[in-house]
Amino acid sequence: MQVRSAQARDNDAIWDIIGPTIRAGETYALPRDMSRAAALSYWNSPGHEVFVAEQDGKVLGTYYMRANQQGGGSHVANCGYMTAAEASGRGVARAMCAHSLAHAGARGFRAMQFNFVVSSNERAIALWEGFGFNIVGRLAQAFEHPRLGPVDAVVMYRML
Amino acid sequence: MQVRSAQARDNDAIWDIIGPTIRAGETYALPRDMSRAAALSYWNSPGHEVFVAEQDGKVLGTYYMRANQQGGGSHVANCGYMTAAEASGRGVARAMCAHSLAHAGARGFRAMQFNFVVSSNERAIALWEGFGFNIVGRLAQAFEHPRLGPVDAVVMYRML
Repeated sequence: MQVRSAQARDNDAIWDIIGPTIRAGETYALPRDMSRAAALSYWNSPGHEVFVAEQDGKVLGTYYMRANQQGGGSHVANCGYMTAAEASGRGVARAMCAHSLAHAGARGFRAMQFNFVVSSNERAIALWEGFGFNIVGRLAQAFEHPRLGPVDAVVMYRML
Repeated sequence: MQVRSAQARDNDAIWDIIGPTIRAGETYALPRDMSRAAALSYWNSPGHEVFVAEQDGKVLGTYYMRANQQGGGSHVANCGYMTAAEASGRGVARAMCAHSLAHAGARGFRAMQFNFVVSSNERAIALWEGFGFNIVGRLAQAFEHPRLGPVDAVVMYRML
């Protein structure tokens, strides 16, 4: 598995990953009916560095990194990761998270924060905890889950 | 003290409040050298409802309200409040917070979240606690304070 900077030619593959995740609406606080253009525009926002995880020439995951805040908060990184449904369980998120921690350190970030991890996404939480992130906050019923109804979201954080 | 929707004609008064706060860099994670245009564009972002607190025809404070997240998180409001330095201690922030809680309820929000309250801003934290907000998260050294160096930021939250 190789993690590399995304290019414009990766947009189709990125949409094939983020589209279904957004439509499912179970893990990201994004409008489920978001258009392809709006979704790609969000993922590739100014200030986002976008990466893809690739194996045998196929893109299996993508993540972005950005400064979580401006000004006095700009030394804390934030990332969002999405894996192709069909590649679930193959270590794609793990490879991307490892890459992002190394890259954030190289970029001079001093901490990394996930603002809004849906509490029912237990697999992601366990994975991030394995990478040294702690749950440092809990937002009661902050996410309306399409199947489960209102669930908590957690804030995860680690120093770099 | 009256709290009302901001109009285009309020932009000079709003800048007179947010400009010094941004330049000081002690309470908001915004670039201290942000231009007037960039600051007003941020304060009046699409999706922000902007209000001013006025007394005897003089604007003494301003706040914005927005949905803190999109999609499954869009029922949680977020606000940012700033008070004119010369009006400090006169209940301006209190009036704006009270107004915002009522307005958020009327708008159908079900909770309110402050994402990034600088921990050294003890007066604000005490005020929000008085309004029923709880510190639900702590971000270690997430803010580089211009005088104090790295300080924590806290996440505050309350149901509506």
